[in-house]
Amino acid sequence: MTATRDHGDPGDSPTIPGPLHDVARPARPTPAEEARTLAAANTSGTLATLTGDGDPWASFVTYGLHGGSPVLCVSHMAEHGRNLANDQRASIAIVTPDADGDPLASGRVTLAGTVVRPVGDEYDAARAAHLDAVPAARYYLDYSDFSLWVLRVHRVRWVGGYGRMDSASGADYVAAEPDPVVPQAAPAVAHLNADHAESLLAMARSLGGYPDAITARCTGADRYGLDLSVTTPRGPQSAPTRVGYARRLDSADELRSATVELAQTARAQGSSL
Amino acid sequence: MTATRDHGDPGDSPTIPGPLHDVARPARPTPAEEARTLAAANTSGTLATLTGDGDPWASFVTYGLHGGSPVLCVSHMAEHGRNLANDQRASIAIVTPDADGDPLASGRVTLAGTVVRPVGDEYDAARAAHLDAVPAARYYLDYSDFSLWVLRVHRVRWVGGYGRMDSASGADYVAAEPDPVVPQAAPAVAHLNADHAESLLAMARSLGGYPDAITARCTGADRYGLDLSVTTPRGPQSAPTRVGYARRLDSADELRSATVELAQTARAQGSSL
Repeated sequence: MTATRDHGDPGDSPTIPGPLHDVARPARPTPAEEARTLAAANTSGTLATLTGDGDPWASFVTYGLHGGSPVLCVSHMAEHGRNLANDQRASIAIVTPDADGDPLASGRVTLAGTVVRPVGDEYDAARAAHLDAVPAARYYLDYSDFSLWVLRVHRVRWVGGYGRMDSASGADYVAAEPDPVVPQAAPAVAHLNADHAESLLAMARSLGGYPDAITARCTGADRYGLDLSVTTPRGPQSAPTRVGYARRLDSADELRSATVELAQTARAQGSSL
Repeated sequence: MTATRDHGDPGDSPTIPGPLHDVARPARPTPAEEARTLAAANTSGTLATLTGDGDPWASFVTYGLHGGSPVLCVSHMAEHGRNLANDQRASIAIVTPDADGDPLASGRVTLAGTVVRPVGDEYDAARAAHLDAVPAARYYLDYSDFSLWVLRVHRVRWVGGYGRMDSASGADYVAAEPDPVVPQAAPAVAHLNADHAESLLAMARSLGGYPDAITARCTGADRYGLDLSVTTPRGPQSAPTRVGYARRLDSADELRSATVELAQTARAQGSSL
């Protein structure tokens, strides 16, 4: 009997080398922020509802967000519309489109709670939020068989990819702000990898806890810092690490100056080692 | 009170001109074939399961197909794994990635039924089917916390986009063959539109029921024929129609000769009008 490992590892999994030093600035988005950002970056997902027999029913839906709460527009001629009218419990899974060919590496979130029919000011705001996210809804939103439903989120499960996952309360999710950097980050990340590999390596070595890094590739950027994937002489696999900016960014416009500052800090610390 | 229309149309929706003649060969895939083809073209979807409280829980999953039945590999450390162990009712929604910016125009299917843990020969076949579809599963499939589950499909709901939807039994779904042409059709469709617009127009006029067609664009190809979107002088919107091959195709390799034959038939009929 081998010792129990995470995920019932039978013992033959490759190990990933860990950092040799503490990560200087490990700040990253909270699970609630990750979930809120992911939900804001998409306009479709899959709804789980209950049939008349209480069976779970998965179906495609579009949504807009009103203060973080998904706003659905569904027909009572559709099965999920009849289900919601009968039982208001629902959850929605939202998945970031698969970028690099490994579906389980993609971020996704489940928002679970109960739906309500908005009235008064909330109806107007919910209608506007849905139309803003799903312009084609103008062709059917006012048909008499379509209803708006707002999902009151009670709990949240976020998965950021392999080994990154956590839960959040509905209150923390609704209070969280969508990250302003993430939706604009892809070109900056590509630029860093194409033209600033030496700077990324310096960051990994002096700020990311990997003084023996051989290569460093940026895999993501958010308002708190950069995710780096590093290789070392200690293992065949790359390890993920983190380099944080000096302060939280409030706009994607600040990303360039923040990464320049990171590179300068990393080089200054590297030359003093 | 206006007369009741489809989808509770308040009366101001644009109308789409219909065909003036019968479509010569209207054959198209059955809903069961559409669903089977769509499921075979993808390897991830969203699972709906029941929590301990009987709430609906939507979560991202990867799958392979064993004879049409989705094979899942889930950890009992994950919420959906615990849910399936507790209640075997489940459904999976599979969505064709959004191609043209209108999510509700994309095809999707819900497969609903109950999951079972495969044993013996079915276990081996299910394991192979999952690994074939999800190669990354080799890194975790044999961890002790992961289990294979096969979804026995009891009923199917397919939506092909606006106005195309139908149900199918689980038996019809499992018996249906995935369309061999659909996965290979995109380059052929692009070629037809780029280089054979006149042939498509001739097909729409003589075979597709639109003798007054002004333009015709191919929007899809399957083993039975082509979908055409046509414009006419009778309305601002384009209408979808169908031109079928002389016989069902058994391979994507037959698509080129079948479309050449369609063009020849259309031109021959057109010149005799």
